[in-house]
Amino acid sequence: MATHKPLFILNMEPEIWFTEKHTDFAGITFKVNTVLYTGKSKFQRIDVLDTQEYGRVLLLDGLIMFTERDEFVYHEMIAHVPLFSHPHSEDVLVIGGGDGGAIRELVKHTCLKRIDQIELDKEVIRIAKEFFPALSSGYKDNRVNVNIGDGSEFVRKTNQRYDVVIVDSTDPVGSAECLFEEDFYGCIYNILKEDGFISIQSESPFCDMNWTSAAVKNLKKVFPIVKTYLCFIPTYPSGMWSFTIASKIYDPEDIRNERFKQMGFDLKYYNKEIHKACFALPNFVRSKL
Amino acid sequence: MATHKPLFILNMEPEIWFTEKHTDFAGITFKVNTVLYTGKSKFQRIDVLDTQEYGRVLLLDGLIMFTERDEFVYHEMIAHVPLFSHPHSEDVLVIGGGDGGAIRELVKHTCLKRIDQIELDKEVIRIAKEFFPALSSGYKDNRVNVNIGDGSEFVRKTNQRYDVVIVDSTDPVGSAECLFEEDFYGCIYNILKEDGFISIQSESPFCDMNWTSAAVKNLKKVFPIVKTYLCFIPTYPSGMWSFTIASKIYDPEDIRNERFKQMGFDLKYYNKEIHKACFALPNFVRSKL
Repeated sequence: MATHKPLFILNMEPEIWFTEKHTDFAGITFKVNTVLYTGKSKFQRIDVLDTQEYGRVLLLDGLIMFTERDEFVYHEMIAHVPLFSHPHSEDVLVIGGGDGGAIRELVKHTCLKRIDQIELDKEVIRIAKEFFPALSSGYKDNRVNVNIGDGSEFVRKTNQRYDVVIVDSTDPVGSAECLFEEDFYGCIYNILKEDGFISIQSESPFCDMNWTSAAVKNLKKVFPIVKTYLCFIPTYPSGMWSFTIASKIYDPEDIRNERFKQMGFDLKYYNKEIHKACFALPNFVRSKL
Repeated sequence: MATHKPLFILNMEPEIWFTEKHTDFAGITFKVNTVLYTGKSKFQRIDVLDTQEYGRVLLLDGLIMFTERDEFVYHEMIAHVPLFSHPHSEDVLVIGGGDGGAIRELVKHTCLKRIDQIELDKEVIRIAKEFFPALSSGYKDNRVNVNIGDGSEFVRKTNQRYDVVIVDSTDPVGSAECLFEEDFYGCIYNILKEDGFISIQSESPFCDMNWTSAAVKNLKKVFPIVKTYLCFIPTYPSGMWSFTIASKIYDPEDIRNERFKQMGFDLKYYNKEIHKACFALPNFVRSKL
């Protein structure tokens, strides 16, 4: 009787690749080492992937929220552009941003006295603390006050007044849709102090110009000064990402030299020159805003 | 005898997707409608794809050279940044760039009297003229003189002197490797007039910082003024692309208002503000240059 001894021992691990389709016809793809977590919260599906190229990656409803490799760009740019332009910010509100990335950047500013957050999904914060301890490290700062709930309700009801409000939301579909509307921006106008800023993530002008221009249009209905700025986020659709600041009085392109003198921390993306430069828009973006 | 009549008539076209791996672990992927051309020249494999998302796409040795959707960024930025900074350019040399994109932008400048090109692979020019008529339209301009041959030899032998030399090359591997070396830059220094510029594509600082910094280092051995600038090219690795200008006298960040006044053509990406802004580098790039 013949013994069945294989000539080769096949011991290959399967190659698992994640592909995020940015449209039906194109996307980004990368190799997944391990799926560290998969779960469903009350609001969304949450996945944490470990990848070779980008480190750990958080997916919400199957879409990349951030990767360890390039999250610094998003979080530095959403936080420091308003913070280094506003001359005397003390009270800041973050709407969304449950991963803690914006908070991590904000706590670097010693001038801040109060950092409130309103996040819809407490599971996102829990997952961030478990799988992304460096990203979520700002939650340890005792100026940070976390509220769980609906951002659009929070801004309607709160008696607190803020120097800067940061809207760190997902795409304007589903529960985040209202965070891109005039009504919401009107409520934020009301809870900002007389010289306050609101700063929002405003999508990719290359992929979703309609989203960017709708957000800008709605902000312009409420605020006298509205400016969009850009940065490179390689793992987001097209790699060209926009934020938009709206302001009651100050021009957000103006930086505060006195703030830079007290800076006292190093950053990987943001600097004075980037602050000035990020407001320069290519013609194909400028013509649509 | 039973007749074999299928319940459903399957008449689905196959879904063909092209994936360019930027590393072993990540890449860009998009749907291909048709492969319009596949061939091999003396130097490389050439493919032309028709795609839903990006229009027609040229691949050389399997890598995306450009897509119709976003080529305007690359070609405007490689051409107009040096041209709107040099105060009186008349004679320009393009090394590589056989697709004609840089030439198309250069011929818009009425001040130019002579636009020479040295391209290694005449097949690239032929394919560009056949499949990308708009992109290659500049070849009809009678100021354009096309030479087929090795760029590094051409710059060693030519007696012509130039105001601006543009190096529109592929990645620094294989036949293009020498176009990133000190020796080559030295030859270009010699064929530039006393106030000339060289402008090169210098890869993605996010993906291949070593390539960018090697090019900058080699340019600095030859030229007193060397500055890197950035733009968004969604279909290139990371979407963050760099060019580097080296100069004998003038600061390439300075724009010439008199040149803008005579501009007389519209662009999709480049403008005065972009010219200033593109030289602002994120800290993670600046620290490596």
